[in-house]
Amino acid sequence: MSKKKIILDLDTGIDDSLALAYVIANPDADLVGVTSEYGNVHVELAAENSLKILELLHHPEIPVFIGESHASTKDSFEVLPTSQRIHGINGIGNIQLPTPKRQPEKTSAADFMVEAAHQYGKDLIIVPTGPMTNLALALEKEPHLPDLIGGVTFMGGALTVPGNITPVAEANINQDPEAANKVFHSRLPLTMIGLDVTHRAVLTKDDTAIWRMIGTPAATNFADMLDYYIDIYLANQAYVGGCALHDPLAAAVAIDPSFVTTIDLDLKVDLDEPYRARTIGDEMRIHNKPHTKVAVNLDVPYFIGIFMKYLGKLFQNTKEN
Amino acid sequence: MSKKKIILDLDTGIDDSLALAYVIANPDADLVGVTSEYGNVHVELAAENSLKILELLHHPEIPVFIGESHASTKDSFEVLPTSQRIHGINGIGNIQLPTPKRQPEKTSAADFMVEAAHQYGKDLIIVPTGPMTNLALALEKEPHLPDLIGGVTFMGGALTVPGNITPVAEANINQDPEAANKVFHSRLPLTMIGLDVTHRAVLTKDDTAIWRMIGTPAATNFADMLDYYIDIYLANQAYVGGCALHDPLAAAVAIDPSFVTTIDLDLKVDLDEPYRARTIGDEMRIHNKPHTKVAVNLDVPYFIGIFMKYLGKLFQNTKEN
Repeated sequence: MSKKKIILDLDTGIDDSLALAYVIANPDADLVGVTSEYGNVHVELAAENSLKILELLHHPEIPVFIGESHASTKDSFEVLPTSQRIHGINGIGNIQLPTPKRQPEKTSAADFMVEAAHQYGKDLIIVPTGPMTNLALALEKEPHLPDLIGGVTFMGGALTVPGNITPVAEANINQDPEAANKVFHSRLPLTMIGLDVTHRAVLTKDDTAIWRMIGTPAATNFADMLDYYIDIYLANQAYVGGCALHDPLAAAVAIDPSFVTTIDLDLKVDLDEPYRARTIGDEMRIHNKPHTKVAVNLDVPYFIGIFMKYLGKLFQNTKEN
Repeated sequence: MSKKKIILDLDTGIDDSLALAYVIANPDADLVGVTSEYGNVHVELAAENSLKILELLHHPEIPVFIGESHASTKDSFEVLPTSQRIHGINGIGNIQLPTPKRQPEKTSAADFMVEAAHQYGKDLIIVPTGPMTNLALALEKEPHLPDLIGGVTFMGGALTVPGNITPVAEANINQDPEAANKVFHSRLPLTMIGLDVTHRAVLTKDDTAIWRMIGTPAATNFADMLDYYIDIYLANQAYVGGCALHDPLAAAVAIDPSFVTTIDLDLKVDLDEPYRARTIGDEMRIHNKPHTKVAVNLDVPYFIGIFMKYLGKLFQNTKEN
């Protein structure tokens, strides 16, 4: 079986950084490129953070592409105060990393998605972990995208649990509900990794203490980032019991779907207030064969075990900096 | 294995009448009593309709109990115009049946639930198909109810699809959200049969045509009732493709859970507008072992096949009236 080819579409972000590390560490996947989104930070900072993390992890060869700078229905974007609080002013928990040596590519995020779709075909899984703006644009540019690629596994939405922006809205979908709704109504093979499962995938300071013992720059920087993130969670959403591994879980499921239990259900996004950005089953397609899988449960020890194993190995292997 | 003892808690209702017929027809269950709810009709009319249907089906020995006449947080109840439209002015699609010979019992619905819990223990499954007011009151009267009975399988709520009263509220939960929330936060072993699955369990006039061929009074009256119900569905919610078998599906799953796929998830009811009456996973209990199963998919041909088989046999066996 050929390795899965992964595009991470990141608004990098602390948990986005973990998703990067996870895919790099996973022997069953090739990270063919990182596209950048606005969301946790501005799109340029997302790209810069991705380049910094790639260099920290000794993978400067992976190209980074810049995506859309704002939602498809807006003409600008400002980082939400809540995003700044959760991810820090610089998006990576205020840790300091060297200015990256490499620049982002000239090709746009959406164009790279289309190129990669033609190059890798069914082996390609696109993993958006922020707004769906880039992916919706790629769909517009290449309407055959659903027939070309293996699938899309995205972090976003909340089907069986409340949202984290409003009681119905999850943060990523909330950034561009119209783009997400276009993706949901395309024929893309989708897997939704929403708050339904990501709030069960929890990391604590017991885990980051292990990285501190590894002691490489990668391990220590990730421990610093994650401790920042865990503290914010404990202050704001103590019931989670640590920090939620939103984005790395989506990346992990893209490579190995067996971490989660899914239900088959085509979705829509509510666009009108007060339900705006809610992800919910589309009652008009209830008798159709669905193209969407929604993760509703997670094998927690299996996922956390594999996650810690791969990241531990990766951090050990990045000794010289 | 002893037969399951069933209490149907009905606001009778067209699909409530089908639930009655289904449990009577099912050889694996004993219908030990019918409790009455306000909802589709006033509680007294619900009791009268249950008595009429029981006599039509040649089972006048089954006792009928009168329950609460309004929501736990209100002091009166008026039938909603939408209920009248869906179930007819008399609640049973305006078919005319003789005045029942038997009267409702003197014991209240909640008291009967508690008595039956002590009498039948784990064999007892309570099946509310309307507001949860009676069950919440029984819980108040007997806090050990969760330890006594086998479970509660209820028709109500919508987890993965929109509601039918508002985009978030399903009709039964909407009648008394506070009562439902109390039930959800009790330790009762719950199975939710919501719009998630009942909108997939569809009856059409091809099915009622079979009952017309059987030609007994029971068969013909049920065909008349159901054709009324199907016409309303086709006019209001054509995408369902017929009428939804809400209440009989809950009754069927109470007896045989294998009709549905469930997920384990403890629920809460949102009590504040604009999300009032929404059923959603309780994020505060996401790491607990759930006591609630939520049906998210249905084996449609299996259920419809068994449903038609049992009802056909029952209708054939009620020749003399």
